[in-house]
Amino acid sequence: MPLSNRLPVIVQGLGPMGLRVLAGAIAAPALAVVGAVDCDQRIAGRTLGSLIPGAGPTVVARDLPTAAANAPPGTVVLQGIGSFLAQVAPAIEEAVDLGLSVVSTCEELAWPFARHPALSEALDARARAAGVTVVGTGVNPGFLMDRLVVTLRAAVHAVRAIRVERVQDPRPRRVPFQRKVGMGLSREEWDAAAARPGFGHAGLEESARIVAAGFGWDIPRFEETLEPFQADPAGPVLGVVQEVRGETADGRRLSLHFAAHSGVSASYDRIAIDGMPPITMRFEGGVFGDDATVSAVLAAAQVMPHTRRGLVTVLDLPLR
Amino acid sequence: MPLSNRLPVIVQGLGPMGLRVLAGAIAAPALAVVGAVDCDQRIAGRTLGSLIPGAGPTVVARDLPTAAANAPPGTVVLQGIGSFLAQVAPAIEEAVDLGLSVVSTCEELAWPFARHPALSEALDARARAAGVTVVGTGVNPGFLMDRLVVTLRAAVHAVRAIRVERVQDPRPRRVPFQRKVGMGLSREEWDAAAARPGFGHAGLEESARIVAAGFGWDIPRFEETLEPFQADPAGPVLGVVQEVRGETADGRRLSLHFAAHSGVSASYDRIAIDGMPPITMRFEGGVFGDDATVSAVLAAAQVMPHTRRGLVTVLDLPLR
Repeated sequence: MPLSNRLPVIVQGLGPMGLRVLAGAIAAPALAVVGAVDCDQRIAGRTLGSLIPGAGPTVVARDLPTAAANAPPGTVVLQGIGSFLAQVAPAIEEAVDLGLSVVSTCEELAWPFARHPALSEALDARARAAGVTVVGTGVNPGFLMDRLVVTLRAAVHAVRAIRVERVQDPRPRRVPFQRKVGMGLSREEWDAAAARPGFGHAGLEESARIVAAGFGWDIPRFEETLEPFQADPAGPVLGVVQEVRGETADGRRLSLHFAAHSGVSASYDRIAIDGMPPITMRFEGGVFGDDATVSAVLAAAQVMPHTRRGLVTVLDLPLR
Repeated sequence: MPLSNRLPVIVQGLGPMGLRVLAGAIAAPALAVVGAVDCDQRIAGRTLGSLIPGAGPTVVARDLPTAAANAPPGTVVLQGIGSFLAQVAPAIEEAVDLGLSVVSTCEELAWPFARHPALSEALDARARAAGVTVVGTGVNPGFLMDRLVVTLRAAVHAVRAIRVERVQDPRPRRVPFQRKVGMGLSREEWDAAAARPGFGHAGLEESARIVAAGFGWDIPRFEETLEPFQADPAGPVLGVVQEVRGETADGRRLSLHFAAHSGVSASYDRIAIDGMPPITMRFEGGVFGDDATVSAVLAAAQVMPHTRRGLVTVLDLPLR
């Protein structure tokens, strides 16, 4: 694609995931990286080429206004700076006020309306006023356990129950991911870690709410459990098992099961829908989350020009 | 959902598939069946309740203008009357001129632009002028081998090759489907049948073009093969094996493999994408096409009010 037809993007937050997003965006024929931002003193001021071989002379800015100073109209910011909306909202607001659309990997932003109704409404109004779009997505939440499930409505109707499972071995994942599931901790350490915010997989309830909204199911209450996984009760914790369950008043059931522990013999993702016809879909070997989150962010960025303005969700993203 | 909020639909064409669509639409909480049409003298004039227990006193009309005489604004026609666009275009035009949106199971309509460019342009202009939407979809073409593949862009980037397989045992399917694949014919009979239009699975090249468009791949030429499947060269033909292949100028490869024969030990659907990360998705036991086509039609109908006007494809359908 000629450079002038490419969608301009700025990558903000150059941690392990941000660097993967940056590399993916540089390689994507439909995107042009016009800037990068990180507040870390060790990264700001360096060239992209010093972070990713061949990435060129663009200098990483310390803040978004600097990076966006010469950004063309329609530029999209790819933000990977935190899981919790209260923590990342100022950065989203800053981007919106600069006239930039935002694709954020913030897990709570995938479906912010339940946990943060007032903030969601304010963000939506702000984005509409600025004529930009804000969406939260990685591959999970954002695709594997939610949008993909809703997509399957084209293959199954008269649905009575939905079961989604993401079971993975954390050992090939990034160290921060392994820490988030408490891999290798003693049971006491795990219990202490699990009591702190940010532990475990963030976004499972968000995924459940996306599925419910996509199927038009009114589920008054979701129950979530988070448990340690130990192969041997006296041994170390190998990771987590989380589940979210909900039911409509007329008995249609939704459950999402997330497991990430080193006792997993083979990673997989699975969606089973009890309807007409009954269907069971499975990703053999699972979907490697770090690379797939890059895919989700890049795919969302590419459709931002064709998405409605305001605070939207992955259910609002067109296919192209 | 209160009746007044339901989307009004008319079901046109009450063959084996049309009756399934009718039953599905009657049961769908978001839809209200306001009419039905069939030109067959044995069906027109009968009540829906005489065709489907409990379906009520609505009388099947002989033609669409009669069925649509009192249809509310926004009514969508669910048409299942043929695989070839030249054959069904008059019925689509009639619906459009009556101000009705159309969801058609016509396989060629899934991606009509290559085989029928002039007709596509005329249909698009006509639908836009009438302020309605026309889309072609069943589950295949329309979902399993095309739209679903494009949806997976949210999980994989830097794609080098895409392989889609739909392998099914025709024995549980409708008899017309078994005939279309030549199950049980002698090799001579099969060869004669395969030489006639309408033999085999229609829409495989359409699916390939949808995938290519969804990935933004420019594939100059598609090659299609259609072969009989025989377990024993002296015995009967058990069905068909079809394949469509294409490649971009820079070597990215797309292949769609469709097999339907009674030598299949277990039906399955499979999508393998070579990219970052590599992914392989599989439907265990396959997706039962007759029921799933009903799902595809009902799901498309439900989003018609939120889809742009004109002749569109499944790539243009929103998720809700």
